[in-house]
Amino acid sequence: METGDTIVALATPPGMGALALIRVSGLDAIVLVKKMLAEKERFDGAPAKEIRLYRFITSNTKEPIDEITAVKYFEPHSFTGENMVEIICHGGNVVTERILESLVDGGARYAVKGEFTRRAFCNGKTNLVKAESINQIVQSKSITQQKSAICSYLDKYQALINTWEEKIKEILMEVESAIEFGEDGDISERDSWVIIKQKVKTLKDEVISELEKRKAIREVESGIYIAIVGPINAGKSSLFNLVMDFDRSIVDTEGGTTRDFVSEDRKIGNVLVKFIDTAGLRETVQRVEKKGVERSREFIRNSKVLIWVSAADEEIKPEELKIKDLFGQKVLGVINKIDLGDGIEKERMFRKRSIPHIKISAINRNERERVENFIVQELEVLLDGVSYDCIISNKRQEKIIEGIYNELERIENRPKDEEEIIAEHCKNIINKLEEFVGKVTTEDILDKIFDEFCIGK
Amino acid sequence: METGDTIVALATPPGMGALALIRVSGLDAIVLVKKMLAEKERFDGAPAKEIRLYRFITSNTKEPIDEITAVKYFEPHSFTGENMVEIICHGGNVVTERILESLVDGGARYAVKGEFTRRAFCNGKTNLVKAESINQIVQSKSITQQKSAICSYLDKYQALINTWEEKIKEILMEVESAIEFGEDGDISERDSWVIIKQKVKTLKDEVISELEKRKAIREVESGIYIAIVGPINAGKSSLFNLVMDFDRSIVDTEGGTTRDFVSEDRKIGNVLVKFIDTAGLRETVQRVEKKGVERSREFIRNSKVLIWVSAADEEIKPEELKIKDLFGQKVLGVINKIDLGDGIEKERMFRKRSIPHIKISAINRNERERVENFIVQELEVLLDGVSYDCIISNKRQEKIIEGIYNELERIENRPKDEEEIIAEHCKNIINKLEEFVGKVTTEDILDKIFDEFCIGK
Repeated sequence: METGDTIVALATPPGMGALALIRVSGLDAIVLVKKMLAEKERFDGAPAKEIRLYRFITSNTKEPIDEITAVKYFEPHSFTGENMVEIICHGGNVVTERILESLVDGGARYAVKGEFTRRAFCNGKTNLVKAESINQIVQSKSITQQKSAICSYLDKYQALINTWEEKIKEILMEVESAIEFGEDGDISERDSWVIIKQKVKTLKDEVISELEKRKAIREVESGIYIAIVGPINAGKSSLFNLVMDFDRSIVDTEGGTTRDFVSEDRKIGNVLVKFIDTAGLRETVQRVEKKGVERSREFIRNSKVLIWVSAADEEIKPEELKIKDLFGQKVLGVINKIDLGDGIEKERMFRKRSIPHIKISAINRNERERVENFIVQELEVLLDGVSYDCIISNKRQEKIIEGIYNELERIENRPKDEEEIIAEHCKNIINKLEEFVGKVTTEDILDKIFDEFCIGK
Repeated sequence: METGDTIVALATPPGMGALALIRVSGLDAIVLVKKMLAEKERFDGAPAKEIRLYRFITSNTKEPIDEITAVKYFEPHSFTGENMVEIICHGGNVVTERILESLVDGGARYAVKGEFTRRAFCNGKTNLVKAESINQIVQSKSITQQKSAICSYLDKYQALINTWEEKIKEILMEVESAIEFGEDGDISERDSWVIIKQKVKTLKDEVISELEKRKAIREVESGIYIAIVGPINAGKSSLFNLVMDFDRSIVDTEGGTTRDFVSEDRKIGNVLVKFIDTAGLRETVQRVEKKGVERSREFIRNSKVLIWVSAADEEIKPEELKIKDLFGQKVLGVINKIDLGDGIEKERMFRKRSIPHIKISAINRNERERVENFIVQELEVLLDGVSYDCIISNKRQEKIIEGIYNELERIENRPKDEEEIIAEHCKNIINKLEEFVGKVTTEDILDKIFDEFCIGK
């Protein structure tokens, strides 16, 4: 990839909009843009970072293309660390295309994916974790993802990485001095070994903690599974339809009409939720339903939350009493069909088991908001424990931290007289930490990372 | 519409992109944004129009949402004429939604369509023609439309409108003095009448000229109709498919397989072109084809350009010799099927009639670019005459100018002794000129105009 030349790109999404932003970066960025402005002296006279109004003209016919605002940045005081101009022009495809074309005619070239951020990285304006997080911020589909990405972006990981680096260096020193003075006496050697073991343990715990935080975030990012369970004809599909607000499963007053589980994604509150409507937990022996029940059991096992639906007008079924202890998940209670019964018995059942519950009639569309609020509230309790303050925010990073964990585990499992090998493991960890922030990297890794970016970033 | 409050909107298109721009306008815009920034003193200390980096935080938890750049504008030195802040944040829906929500939680409200521009208009920062042109720039689908819109935006109409206003006021003065001194003597009265007539004529000519320019631009904007005509089996559909680059009409080696005209839009060069594949110009009497032929005749009549296709391997058909004089359009010649004949006779036919022509084999896909270049080149000659320097750029404006034309015509048709009525016509014209630039307007008109805008504009 050539890096000295001047690149241009539309940084805002294409399409109809009031405004659009075009980025120009490279040695000639400022000179190039100046050629395209009617008010050249005005542009020359503008201090860096001062936004001013100009007419953007074609360089040959001098015909105006648009009235724009533009701001100059002199290297290294810009996003990329190069000379840069940001042009805010009117939106719409024609204007942006004409401006980009003029700049390319003038000598710039269209940027490839992530090229602005890559230049920022190469010029030391950003590190790899921060660069990656920019892409994650942009591509976030939920607040959870975005929160986790912004933590990385704001260098929250840096302090911890530094601490780990210090700790592992201390361990390495301890190991190296054990190598050097190992023959001096058994007692000091044993002390040294205890210290090493202890320090490794502390560090490993911290590493595990980050990996676990990551796991919890990942779970929220990919969507919380909520299985709707309960006895036959409790109204599971009606509840499912209520939260989905459309008819997805077959609802029938005869029991057992839902032959297989059905699943749908929904954003509820700020969380991506995957609701699963199960075929019921009945111990059915009917062949046709067996597969459905098996699959629904599997989905229930993998769900983070169960919604236990029980009809107000029916007896408590013996099998439904097993729900609470099924797979240890959080359980929410829904007493359905309160238009058909008082549900007092069911209320007692839930209260006895400390299960938060709500009384509804799922066939009443107006109950939708109440049910949603109930779920959101309970999810918030559940997700309050999720800390977004995690140093890991993508797969690459997670893999490296897992690698560090493995190295630490290998150290723990080594007999004390293998100090040389233990020292190697320590050095591997230091390398991995440097890899994490991008101090050591290869063109291949960079290509892979930046290829996931959008153009203009 | 309330106008004192602070409004916010995403000004760039929604969706995935490196960056996004959010506009905040209103009395509290700067105070409000300050509440949301981690670096409040930095923001306070920033001069107007200086872009700086900040952390945008939630006002309650102080949790960072994004790292942004922001720029302040103090009233009246802003687009709307109010206090404004422009926030450039990372792209993607989550970040922009979170920032907008925070601002709304902080006391702003979401802007309605065109509200920023409407405020600019109400605060005298822009006139109506300019405001309208902003929307036209954004919504342009072709360079032609955008060129015409930018002319309006850059106030190119203002000088001419001023001249017309002066002229009509002179006429009015002349008329009024004729009323006042009308009884003094026939000679001066007749002189005065001649002067009025002459001035009205001059003005009317100028008005007609603008209406005609507008008509030509409108034609280009809505797309140039090009009809592909020629005798049976000349290969019209093959040519049509070649320029379309896909199979749209039924092509068959038997003559007369295209039963009706087919039409397709294409951008060719920078012009929107509507190609029409006709059912042939043969004087058919077959009932089934009659309607097709009638419709194709109508389309041919309305076409700006005819492409006369003639096969290299066939005799000159008597009926095809009528094409040149058909409806007086520009005609381009295509000698098709040069793989089957030399086409020398056809070349002579076109040359004799000064028809620019090309020799091709339309079934050869590789000829596509050559044919396209040929058409583009000839269209450019045709469109060179279109002046985008027209004061009219939309229907509202065109209607007003037509109204002025009608008033001028009425003056011309009045007998000279109806000075009072003529004076009324003059006043109507002055009113219309004021209506044109929006000096007189109603809430209804403004509602209608700004409702066509996008949000954030």
